[in-house]
Amino acid sequence: MQELCISGGTILTMDEAGSIIDDGMLLIQGPRIAYCGPRQAVNAPGSHERIELDARGGLVLPGLINRQTHAAMTLMRGMADDLPLDKWLTEHIFPAETKLSGDAVYWGTMLACAEMIRNGVTSFCDMYLFERETAKAADAAGLRAVVGEVIYDFPSSSYGELENGFAVTQELIAAYAGHPRIKAAIMPHALYTCSPPLLERAAGLAQKTGADINIHLSETKHETAQVVERYGKRPLDHLQSLGLLNRSLWVDHAVDLNNDEIVRLAEAGVRVAHCPESNMKLASGVAPLMEMLAAEVKLGLGTDGCASNNDLDLFGEMDSCAKIHKAVSLDPTVAPAETVCALATRMGAEAFGHQDLGVLAEGMLADVIVLDTNQPHLTPMYNPYSHLVYAAKGSDVIHTICHGEVLMADREIRTMDLAEVMARAKEQAALLNGRVR
Amino acid sequence: MQELCISGGTILTMDEAGSIIDDGMLLIQGPRIAYCGPRQAVNAPGSHERIELDARGGLVLPGLINRQTHAAMTLMRGMADDLPLDKWLTEHIFPAETKLSGDAVYWGTMLACAEMIRNGVTSFCDMYLFERETAKAADAAGLRAVVGEVIYDFPSSSYGELENGFAVTQELIAAYAGHPRIKAAIMPHALYTCSPPLLERAAGLAQKTGADINIHLSETKHETAQVVERYGKRPLDHLQSLGLLNRSLWVDHAVDLNNDEIVRLAEAGVRVAHCPESNMKLASGVAPLMEMLAAEVKLGLGTDGCASNNDLDLFGEMDSCAKIHKAVSLDPTVAPAETVCALATRMGAEAFGHQDLGVLAEGMLADVIVLDTNQPHLTPMYNPYSHLVYAAKGSDVIHTICHGEVLMADREIRTMDLAEVMARAKEQAALLNGRVR
Repeated sequence: MQELCISGGTILTMDEAGSIIDDGMLLIQGPRIAYCGPRQAVNAPGSHERIELDARGGLVLPGLINRQTHAAMTLMRGMADDLPLDKWLTEHIFPAETKLSGDAVYWGTMLACAEMIRNGVTSFCDMYLFERETAKAADAAGLRAVVGEVIYDFPSSSYGELENGFAVTQELIAAYAGHPRIKAAIMPHALYTCSPPLLERAAGLAQKTGADINIHLSETKHETAQVVERYGKRPLDHLQSLGLLNRSLWVDHAVDLNNDEIVRLAEAGVRVAHCPESNMKLASGVAPLMEMLAAEVKLGLGTDGCASNNDLDLFGEMDSCAKIHKAVSLDPTVAPAETVCALATRMGAEAFGHQDLGVLAEGMLADVIVLDTNQPHLTPMYNPYSHLVYAAKGSDVIHTICHGEVLMADREIRTMDLAEVMARAKEQAALLNGRVR
Repeated sequence: MQELCISGGTILTMDEAGSIIDDGMLLIQGPRIAYCGPRQAVNAPGSHERIELDARGGLVLPGLINRQTHAAMTLMRGMADDLPLDKWLTEHIFPAETKLSGDAVYWGTMLACAEMIRNGVTSFCDMYLFERETAKAADAAGLRAVVGEVIYDFPSSSYGELENGFAVTQELIAAYAGHPRIKAAIMPHALYTCSPPLLERAAGLAQKTGADINIHLSETKHETAQVVERYGKRPLDHLQSLGLLNRSLWVDHAVDLNNDEIVRLAEAGVRVAHCPESNMKLASGVAPLMEMLAAEVKLGLGTDGCASNNDLDLFGEMDSCAKIHKAVSLDPTVAPAETVCALATRMGAEAFGHQDLGVLAEGMLADVIVLDTNQPHLTPMYNPYSHLVYAAKGSDVIHTICHGEVLMADREIRTMDLAEVMARAKEQAALLNGRVR
């Protein structure tokens, strides 16, 4: 068994007590943390191979958890921006997506994984097309992921007719059952693209397989109006009437919610992925984060896809999250730094069905990142949480470890040939849209 | 004369026509651009020394212009966050500022300059205490700056009684008259901290010396209410009645403006520094950027100080600027990427009193930055403006040139000993607040 020792930094455990260990040490055996505490002499590794990583007096914290993305949309980053939603979708994104292939999704996802590893993201939830390729890429990159083939009423450029969409979903669930890092979920796109029979079938499959369901929900007032017009009910009522409002559900965005709906999300144990930057860029509105936190809704932070953000950087997302809620509430005390850090770590971990993720402590899964804080923009340091949210950048991450494996050391990604990934992704992007430079 | 040749990148000239030169070349002689166009063979330098910088197929653009900061507040970054404004100021920032010294401001500003150089900022406007030291540090770092000693009714920890504040201001104006990169302005703090006589005297000094005046204005509704209560007039009316509303004025924030005031700012030729991240973090409100742009108010983008942002990164500021205005207007077409890039370059240049700054073209001042775009988060590239605003980070800047001098090449800052600057800044921070880690 491989043993990994990270020493010499300040450990932010991200436990509920907010424990911080100065001059700490993490000992990782296999995929789990064997020791997390003050630096001390450790026994000779015996039969283990021991790898040493120097935290260089920086910050050591749990790998960040990206609760919602569409990884392969890295290929469409900057393809179109600053447009009305309809025009953006129908004239740019949808036409590009009709040309998608498994290769495009594989290389687009590898590119996304490279970006996430460099930004200290060790786990992500992904809904997209050709999701078998997403799972393959995440596995090859060494990241933790929940993947799901997007399902909707109309034919998909990936699987064709809906029937095949359910088949792919079932195949993914079976293929990754028992995988240590990857698992699959059932991913109907949204209430306005999925008929009630589709959603009921998804609920049935969740019950049968134990898999989770993920759906975009209440992203805009326009969506609410569409659902009310079509079904005579607001989105949450509609979901509930179809039997989906329960612990197996997680929803993306949750912007247009009333107070009653917030309470019901909490009571039903529904998890919510909050995506502030995407909501800002697409002008979807601002989700009621503080109200959801107060109601104890299970929350995490997501970047959404690169066509609407345009990055996979949870440091930027934390910064925007902390600021947008202050700006709209006119209250500088909301979304404080430590809470926002928790959203991206401990709180976000729940999506992965592990109780043992998102906190650094003995026995927990070893998803760990190290930031080099010996830099002008992080000097001096009074409060590590403040620095992480308001000053640190993804580029400050020097080491990224997932499931005990070193994915990046000293900014060098070890699980892929980065030059090849960028070259292949560029080729695939040119096939989707000739305007690539 | 030294000659500098930057070749092999895509040049975003940032001129009004939006000219982009693929595989371009910049030839810089002394402080100015001698050639900006397609790459071509150049004559032997003759008697010049020629330095070659490889743009590595990346992006070449004007150095970014930070229209408002308090540079030395790097020492207070993260000292206190997420607090009500009163408590933040009176319990944390003001007590620390009473302990400020010239050394603290010098090293805090050097630290800020290091951060700005690394983030591609080549010009900044600074209002703070001990501003002689700010000017010295900016000069040593090689940056372009407008500096001003902050003046208010009460005694200053820097100069003592107000009389001395005017003396320091006059001394700074005289000392830097004719300096190629640094100049001084008159900087009364705000309407709620400066009496009418102080402001009238500032206006007189501006008229006498030709120096500009800079003031915080209309940052919050609370400020407006205070000014109305005290003087029976809204802030702009009050300024106007004191003779300050003219071309020599620039104001910071300009959040709480009505439509009439926006038109009057434009008509009077008053320049505005828009600081979206500070306004968000302090919950000051959201400035009417789109209305100011429509009225052709002269606008630039500023970070504000590190105690309320918490960084000096105009890439992050551009991203936040583009997103916050979409979020609050519920219109994804506002604050488009190219406009936001212009705010940070061409439009922001006006503060420096140069008509020859902020655009790359023959004869213009050679403030230039180069970004390495051969990175996962910038691959593929469809639209350089989109990448700059929505995906690029300050850490993508590899070369920074100001006034024809190479301040950073391949991420190495050449104008200071970075380790020393960080060590000295840390020492100074510990003198302000014992809680530094």
